[in-house]
Amino acid sequence: MAADEPQSGEDRLIATYFRPLATHPGALGLMDDAAVLSPPAGHDLVLTVDAVIGGIHFFPEDAADLVAKKALRVNLSDLAAKGAKPVGFLLTLALPERTSENWIALFARGLGSDAKHYDCPLLGGDSTRTIGSVAITVTAFGTLPANTMVHRSGAKPGDMVMVSGTIGDAALGLELRSSGDTAKRWKLGNKANYHLTHRYLVPQPRNALAEAIRNHASAAMDVSDGLAGDLAKLCASSGVSAEIDVAKVPLSDAAASVLAVEPEALERMLSGGDDYEIVCTVSPDRIEEFRAAAQEAQVPVTAIGRVIAVKAPPRFVTGEGKRLQFKRASFSHF
Amino acid sequence: MAADEPQSGEDRLIATYFRPLATHPGALGLMDDAAVLSPPAGHDLVLTVDAVIGGIHFFPEDAADLVAKKALRVNLSDLAAKGAKPVGFLLTLALPERTSENWIALFARGLGSDAKHYDCPLLGGDSTRTIGSVAITVTAFGTLPANTMVHRSGAKPGDMVMVSGTIGDAALGLELRSSGDTAKRWKLGNKANYHLTHRYLVPQPRNALAEAIRNHASAAMDVSDGLAGDLAKLCASSGVSAEIDVAKVPLSDAAASVLAVEPEALERMLSGGDDYEIVCTVSPDRIEEFRAAAQEAQVPVTAIGRVIAVKAPPRFVTGEGKRLQFKRASFSHF
Repeated sequence: MAADEPQSGEDRLIATYFRPLATHPGALGLMDDAAVLSPPAGHDLVLTVDAVIGGIHFFPEDAADLVAKKALRVNLSDLAAKGAKPVGFLLTLALPERTSENWIALFARGLGSDAKHYDCPLLGGDSTRTIGSVAITVTAFGTLPANTMVHRSGAKPGDMVMVSGTIGDAALGLELRSSGDTAKRWKLGNKANYHLTHRYLVPQPRNALAEAIRNHASAAMDVSDGLAGDLAKLCASSGVSAEIDVAKVPLSDAAASVLAVEPEALERMLSGGDDYEIVCTVSPDRIEEFRAAAQEAQVPVTAIGRVIAVKAPPRFVTGEGKRLQFKRASFSHF
Repeated sequence: MAADEPQSGEDRLIATYFRPLATHPGALGLMDDAAVLSPPAGHDLVLTVDAVIGGIHFFPEDAADLVAKKALRVNLSDLAAKGAKPVGFLLTLALPERTSENWIALFARGLGSDAKHYDCPLLGGDSTRTIGSVAITVTAFGTLPANTMVHRSGAKPGDMVMVSGTIGDAALGLELRSSGDTAKRWKLGNKANYHLTHRYLVPQPRNALAEAIRNHASAAMDVSDGLAGDLAKLCASSGVSAEIDVAKVPLSDAAASVLAVEPEALERMLSGGDDYEIVCTVSPDRIEEFRAAAQEAQVPVTAIGRVIAVKAPPRFVTGEGKRLQFKRASFSHF
C-alpha cells in the first residue's frame, strides 16, 4: 500500500491480524473483492458453511482463540464427513463495538494455528460491526476426485453403522459449563471434568479419516446435532432404518463415570449436540479395509449397529433389549 | 423424507421455504452436510462473502424480501466487478427468537425471485438463532475462463477511469431514510425521494456488465464503500493514482437536484457507501469496444478521469480546478 493512502481501522486490523493467514495464492493477499480457486482437473469442490454465535454456540467469555478454532473446526468436520480434503475458507466476522483489539489478536492467533494445522488457509472474508454478540461465519472448501463425495443417502441394508471417537462427551461438557454444581453431582475429578468440558469447547474434527470414508463408506455425515437425530437424518436420506446396540456406542472413561452415577444421562448423550464425530455406514465386505484405513489414520472407529431395510427412524436398543425413546432426537434451533 | 421421521421446526422451515430455491443439482436438495460444485473444465471459481446485519446494514423494519435481495445483491455486485458469471450461493441466516414465520416466508420469496432473475440458485446453508438482530451471510460463487478474473491491481497510467450508472444516490437515500426532515430540506418530490431511498434499499448489481469488464477492463471493483475510498484502494493495489474530473461523475436527476440545494452534499455522495456500481479502468485503445459492449449490455458507463503514474491517492478535481479533500474517503466499520 502507498504510505500516504488513508487506511481505515478496518483495513489496519485486516492487514495486521488476518493477512498473515491468507497464504493461499487465490486469496490475493485479502487485497481484492473476491478470491479465486481452481480445483485440480477431474476434481469437485465441496462447500459447507456454519455460523457460530456468542450466547448461542459458545459462551461470550470463552477464550477468543478457542472460539476461532470452534468456528473453523465445525466446518472442517463437514468436509471430513464428505471425504473431502480442506482447501481453504472464507471468514465473516461480526463484532460488537466493545470488542478489544486483544480479543481480535487472540482470535486470529487461534484461527491461524488451525489454518496451518489443517492445511486450510484463509481465502477471504468480510468484517462488520454488529449490535448483537460476536458472530462468526466460516465457509469452508474441500476437494475430492470428481463424483466421489460421500452422501447421506447411500446406506444399504446390511451395512454396518460405524462411529468415530466417543459419543456424548460434549453434551456432558455443556452441562458442566452451564452449572457449577454438575461436576460435584457427577463426582467428577478435575481430569474428567476437563476432558468433557474441553470436548464441548474445542471440537476435534476427524479430517484424518476423510480418505477412509471416501474409499469405503456408503454414506456418512458428521455428528453435530446428536447421534440419534443425525443418524435419523442419514437413514431418512437413504430410505432405510438402523438397529443400534446402545451398549456398543463408544464412551470416554469420563462419560462412562457420569453414566455410572446418573444412568438417565444416556439419552442426553445420544441426542445432545457438538460431538463432531463421524457416523458412517460401511458394507460388510469393506469393513476390514475401512478399519485398517482408520487405524492407519489413527482414528478409533466402532461398529454400533446395522442398517435394516425399513423406512423408519433408527432403533436404539439397550443390552436388556429395551428400545430407547428420545424426547428430542437432536438439537434444533427452531 | 420418511413420513414418520421426527422433523424439527428448523427442518420444516428449510423444507418449506428454502428447498424450492435449491434448484442447483449440487445443492442435493439441502439434504446433505455440504454442497458440491464442479466448475467447467478450464474455468476458475470466484468466491466472495458479505454479511448484512439488521441495525447496521439495513433497518430492522425493512421489508424482509428487500433485505434478502440486498444480502444476495451485494455479493452479486462483487462477482460482476470481477467479470464472473454467478453460479450459486450459500446462505447463513441467524434469526432472533421473535422472528415470525411470515418474515421468513417473505425473506425466502425475495431471495427466490432474485436467485431466479440472476440465475444464481441456493446451494446450501445454515440457520441458527441469534441473540442480536437478524444477520445474513451470503457466500456467492461465480465462474470465468481460467486466469481471466479482473483484479484491482491492473490499472496502468493513461487508462480511462470508468463508472457505471450514477454515484451518490444511496448515500443520499440513507440520509432520507434516517431523518424525516431531509426530503423537505432538499425540496424533493415523491418521485426523487423514492428513487434515492430505493437505491439505498435495493442495490442494482451490474452483472450484465461482467463480460464487458472481463474482456476490456485492466482493473475493476465494485463501489460499495464510497467512490473516493474504493478508487483509492484500486489505485493503491495498482501502484498508481488517478485524476478525477468531479464534474463528469454521473449523477441521477434526483441527486443533481439535491446538489443544487445543498452543494456540500457532494463530498458525502463521493465517499458514502452502497452505490453498488462498478469502477474500472480501461486502456484508451479498448475504450470504444468497452463502450459498445456496455451499450449492448444496456448499462450506462461514463469516463470520469485518467490513471496517472504516481503512487498516491486519487485526486478529485472540480470544474473550478479545486481539489476536494475528503474527511473520510470511505466507509469503515472500525
